[in-house]
Amino acid sequence: MNHEFYMARALQLAERGRWSTSPNPRVGCVIVSEQGEIVGEGWHQKAGEPHAEVHALRMAGDLARGATAYVTLEPCSHHGRTPPCAEGLINAGVTRVVGACSDLNPLVAGRGYQLLRDAGIDVMTPCLEAQAQELNRGFMQRMRTGMPRVRLKLAHSLDGRTAMACGESQWITGPQARADVQRLRAQSCAIITGAGSVQTDNPSMTVRPAETGITLEERLWRQPLRVVIDGQQRLSGDEKLFSLPGPVLLAVSDARRNRVQRDAALGEFSVWQGPLNPAGKLNLTALLAELGRRGCNDVLVETGAHLAGAFVKAGLVDELVLYCAPTLLGSDARPLLTLGLQQMNEQIRWHWHDVRMVGGDLRMMLRR
Amino acid sequence: MNHEFYMARALQLAERGRWSTSPNPRVGCVIVSEQGEIVGEGWHQKAGEPHAEVHALRMAGDLARGATAYVTLEPCSHHGRTPPCAEGLINAGVTRVVGACSDLNPLVAGRGYQLLRDAGIDVMTPCLEAQAQELNRGFMQRMRTGMPRVRLKLAHSLDGRTAMACGESQWITGPQARADVQRLRAQSCAIITGAGSVQTDNPSMTVRPAETGITLEERLWRQPLRVVIDGQQRLSGDEKLFSLPGPVLLAVSDARRNRVQRDAALGEFSVWQGPLNPAGKLNLTALLAELGRRGCNDVLVETGAHLAGAFVKAGLVDELVLYCAPTLLGSDARPLLTLGLQQMNEQIRWHWHDVRMVGGDLRMMLRR
Repeated sequence: MNHEFYMARALQLAERGRWSTSPNPRVGCVIVSEQGEIVGEGWHQKAGEPHAEVHALRMAGDLARGATAYVTLEPCSHHGRTPPCAEGLINAGVTRVVGACSDLNPLVAGRGYQLLRDAGIDVMTPCLEAQAQELNRGFMQRMRTGMPRVRLKLAHSLDGRTAMACGESQWITGPQARADVQRLRAQSCAIITGAGSVQTDNPSMTVRPAETGITLEERLWRQPLRVVIDGQQRLSGDEKLFSLPGPVLLAVSDARRNRVQRDAALGEFSVWQGPLNPAGKLNLTALLAELGRRGCNDVLVETGAHLAGAFVKAGLVDELVLYCAPTLLGSDARPLLTLGLQQMNEQIRWHWHDVRMVGGDLRMMLRR
Repeated sequence: MNHEFYMARALQLAERGRWSTSPNPRVGCVIVSEQGEIVGEGWHQKAGEPHAEVHALRMAGDLARGATAYVTLEPCSHHGRTPPCAEGLINAGVTRVVGACSDLNPLVAGRGYQLLRDAGIDVMTPCLEAQAQELNRGFMQRMRTGMPRVRLKLAHSLDGRTAMACGESQWITGPQARADVQRLRAQSCAIITGAGSVQTDNPSMTVRPAETGITLEERLWRQPLRVVIDGQQRLSGDEKLFSLPGPVLLAVSDARRNRVQRDAALGEFSVWQGPLNPAGKLNLTALLAELGRRGCNDVLVETGAHLAGAFVKAGLVDELVLYCAPTLLGSDARPLLTLGLQQMNEQIRWHWHDVRMVGGDLRMMLRR
């Protein structure tokens, strides 16, 4: 039996959860009979709903007996909002489980596979491990470190400029790049921006499903948590993003001084008071740790040069997502990042991860 | 007979002349018998030496009679340093000529094909025209406009910076990108730099064959004309580039004030006095026209932000060649180009031509 073949199918299924499973990981499952026939398929759709294994076992029914289950992540062993999947697999009578990778969740880590082995099931792992981990990069990072995976998105010209000196910037990149940003938002748990950007551009920072080009059941759409960093508490609450549905977190230096109110019907609103740096700025590491505690796997930073530069300088950005338009804006235009470096040995180097055209613009993804 | 098949072979042969034919175009020729057998092949190697057709006809000998000749450019019709190739094809008895494209050289344009037709030869053209024109883009541009094709090469960081504020810049890009620049130089007729860059970096601006990775007969290597723009006549002649072999042109505002002397054994040295702009800078259009008159098809600009910005602002750059290193140098570092633009409608837009990895760096080629 070609394990990679069936695991690749399970990964395809898991991939469907890209837009909706958080804070849970994206997981797919395929049940294959001894004759090599796929008799069950499933993917985890939404937190609180059945896991991938449950869907696949339901579809397989009695055919699961004596079959092999392919799971893209170690089956859970704990009673959470749903019963443990390891037990489900045992009860269904599968005789072999092929697991892509281990779960780093301390509630699972190794125990899921052990439970299966203890029940006499043949466990094979890893299988297509790198692909499986890539799919849940943010989740894995949060399980390992408590911190979400942070992506910084910037749109710029060939000469590394994001706007003219006067602030004019609409639009440097084309409609396909902007739709791609919608997809980035849709797969993120939180989107961080700064009060300065909010005051300048008055953005909505929402996911607009129609613009994403994603086909998804209505019930699976969700708005990422919008996080506004307002250390100096300049915002009044009248800004557009507060009036749009979806959860919002306002990060301030003194919660008692908060003036922003929000209609509870629009979604959860929390004011988070964070510690300050020696420089008097909100501590970004503490903010990310808070987002990790709130179950954010993937965080997207979309903001101006100053705050973006602060995230980079603090070493908090895991991935750059750069949309480069084929244009020159000139040397008076605004820099990509405000980042004061004096010598070559202070340069901040990255690794190319992915480079491709998105419409008329070049998208470059780089990792630390 | 599959004309594109044989023409593709002729283009492959022409391509070998990339490093050595200027000021002549790169041309290849294939002679194919009635049975479809290639009986002769040739490519133009060096100005003053036989054209592609001559090499191919020599190889074919009597087998050229009744054969088809594939030529990547219209055969010449005039007596230059070599006899006209159209006559050579007629005398050899070929019965058909397939031509990729027409020569824009006013001494040839259409006459080459007409001569063949008048002699009763079946002429088919165009064939793989776009590929053939691409191979001689600079030559075609010079024939059409009198001006060489200008490429501006820059090496920069993700944030569009070429050096730290203190000037430190070695090395932003890796060894493969630097070898690629050597190949760019080797296919250029002239390399332009400015006195400021010469004073700061003291570059050699030569082609170093061993660094190019190109396999070429010793006799075909040539040094491009090094052009130094020194409007304020700051250079003394002691700079390294003057001491290295190969032709040099010094562009000044007042030839009588020239202090630079050069050993004639090192290669041709000319001092060219150009007109000044209203701003008191040497007129770059006039300089390029002069290079066109001197037979330069392809010119490479390798210089600092000010002069590079002036070329772009004057609309003289046909192609950007950008080597982007996966690093951030910060917002205090030097800009890609000194280019003062205030509003989005002044932006200078380009078309993507080619994007690929060169070692650890990304090479982006863009055209106007």
